[in-house]
Amino acid sequence: MEKIKIGIIGYGNLGRGVELSLEQNPDMELVAVFSRRDPSTLTLLTEGVQATHMDDILDYKGKIDVMILCGGSATDLPSQSPEIAAHFNIIDSFDTHAKIPDHYANVDAATKIGNTLGIISVGWDPGLFSLNRLYGEAVLPKGETFTFWGPGLSQGHSDAVRRVQGVANGVQYTVPIEDAVNIARNGQGADLTTRDKHFRDCYVVAREGADKAAIEETIKTMPNYFADYKTKVTFISEEELQAKHGNMPHGGFVIRSGETGRDGNKHVIEYSLKEESNPEFTSAVLVCYARAAYRLHQQGQTGARTVFDIAPALLSTKTNEQLRAEML
Amino acid sequence: MEKIKIGIIGYGNLGRGVELSLEQNPDMELVAVFSRRDPSTLTLLTEGVQATHMDDILDYKGKIDVMILCGGSATDLPSQSPEIAAHFNIIDSFDTHAKIPDHYANVDAATKIGNTLGIISVGWDPGLFSLNRLYGEAVLPKGETFTFWGPGLSQGHSDAVRRVQGVANGVQYTVPIEDAVNIARNGQGADLTTRDKHFRDCYVVAREGADKAAIEETIKTMPNYFADYKTKVTFISEEELQAKHGNMPHGGFVIRSGETGRDGNKHVIEYSLKEESNPEFTSAVLVCYARAAYRLHQQGQTGARTVFDIAPALLSTKTNEQLRAEML
Repeated sequence: MEKIKIGIIGYGNLGRGVELSLEQNPDMELVAVFSRRDPSTLTLLTEGVQATHMDDILDYKGKIDVMILCGGSATDLPSQSPEIAAHFNIIDSFDTHAKIPDHYANVDAATKIGNTLGIISVGWDPGLFSLNRLYGEAVLPKGETFTFWGPGLSQGHSDAVRRVQGVANGVQYTVPIEDAVNIARNGQGADLTTRDKHFRDCYVVAREGADKAAIEETIKTMPNYFADYKTKVTFISEEELQAKHGNMPHGGFVIRSGETGRDGNKHVIEYSLKEESNPEFTSAVLVCYARAAYRLHQQGQTGARTVFDIAPALLSTKTNEQLRAEML
Repeated sequence: MEKIKIGIIGYGNLGRGVELSLEQNPDMELVAVFSRRDPSTLTLLTEGVQATHMDDILDYKGKIDVMILCGGSATDLPSQSPEIAAHFNIIDSFDTHAKIPDHYANVDAATKIGNTLGIISVGWDPGLFSLNRLYGEAVLPKGETFTFWGPGLSQGHSDAVRRVQGVANGVQYTVPIEDAVNIARNGQGADLTTRDKHFRDCYVVAREGADKAAIEETIKTMPNYFADYKTKVTFISEEELQAKHGNMPHGGFVIRSGETGRDGNKHVIEYSLKEESNPEFTSAVLVCYARAAYRLHQQGQTGARTVFDIAPALLSTKTNEQLRAEML
């Protein structure tokens, strides 16, 4: 069987996650990793694969079926996704919810130039969580949907903690508040805001001689990041931080609660994720959607797509016959 | 907006559930309910809609967009689904897992005659659970999938209880065993069988003067149904049975646990349903897939389909633009 030829663009945590995920998907092969960094400084995990400078990416036209874009949503993907989609099929994990319609339009326009196909905003949120919001609402039109995040490491909030004077190192976990989760499961709590639903759990290494009370106060009153949330600060040693907080766990859940019939029978649909490694899990989602992009493009389809447009069978290595016999 | 015209075939719990679900979906309208019973004996919930004898169903060609079949998998659907699919687009909830490939082939052949489209095996298992088995395996190819059912009323096992001598009435709930659930969440337990994962919880009303010890013994040793399971029998009064056990709750969960990367980072994807009314919930799933069947047929598509073949966006009343802006 001919393998699906994959390129990775960007070689941070997500790019490395995609590389690892490809090892678990024998119908795909990694052809090249593209980076703006000097390729000689990159050590890939995959034997026989080249790190290549972004400037040389067009040399790979016809040699790569799907490019998986592993840059960030803030600055990389808004320009990169359309640029690459004009030449290659792409998958990206664009996750700035408010800007998705614009991003979709830009990628869609680019695919018209390249006769390519691009699936945007793939991952778990947006991505698997979005799917569950849609399925939940379609099945239970009279109801409410709640999304909770965590327990999970927030990169942005961890950075904010580390910028506080006197802080040597630190991490911040976003943790769902159990009471709020139960309210959602009972189909109440339409008024719950993100801050009602989550608390912020910080583990901080103070510099020697730093004023811990002042650090705690600065964190807890930091506007936007912490001031409006219930926030807990725990001081630990650098050793403990390294030992216990080196991973990037994440997860969360989507709850749809609704009712049917004239007697108001209640139903709860709950989808939850627990990830020991957020980038590796996200990568795994990207990779199976790359399979779908390849198949749709093989059928002659072009244009921008989201997870909403992708029939589930396209994600699986199994044939439709196998799926019906084994999984239905 | 032109509404999607729906016909219901079979007017038991499921048929009535579909009728109720249509009330929550303003883009659809119920045109007729078909039954093998004398139509004058049926009292519909919907004003202005006719109960019609099955013999007259072909009079409705061109007047109904999608027929939702609400018969049973044992005797009704194997013949009925192909018969109807030769004339109308259909949705069915065929759930005899082992016979799905044959059923699919029969419906597919029938749709070729009628230039129709049929989505089979829709509901929650098969249906939503199947989707989650597929998504879970696609995202985490290295892992295991566990399906648990309940807590929920089992019709077949309740019937078995009621056939025991000395039993006036009774119900049986299938209940997942919490320890087994936790083993699954930890990604262990590949060897767990259905009987390791569930216990059988019976509420029994004894006839006056009946030997309760004998009833309990007969139930617990009943081959196939109870003998191999952990089974609990609780005697209650008819009043309590009516008050507390009149609903048909069900649910369950699909757990995919797997790992990624070379360090074996673990992940758990869990999908759970809690339904106060199994037939009403199942009906709600059937109805949103009827929307998809209508749309695909409008596009000129024909043939048999399963939930695996249906892009999620087709289930929603929202436009693709709305979905991307609001739900992604």
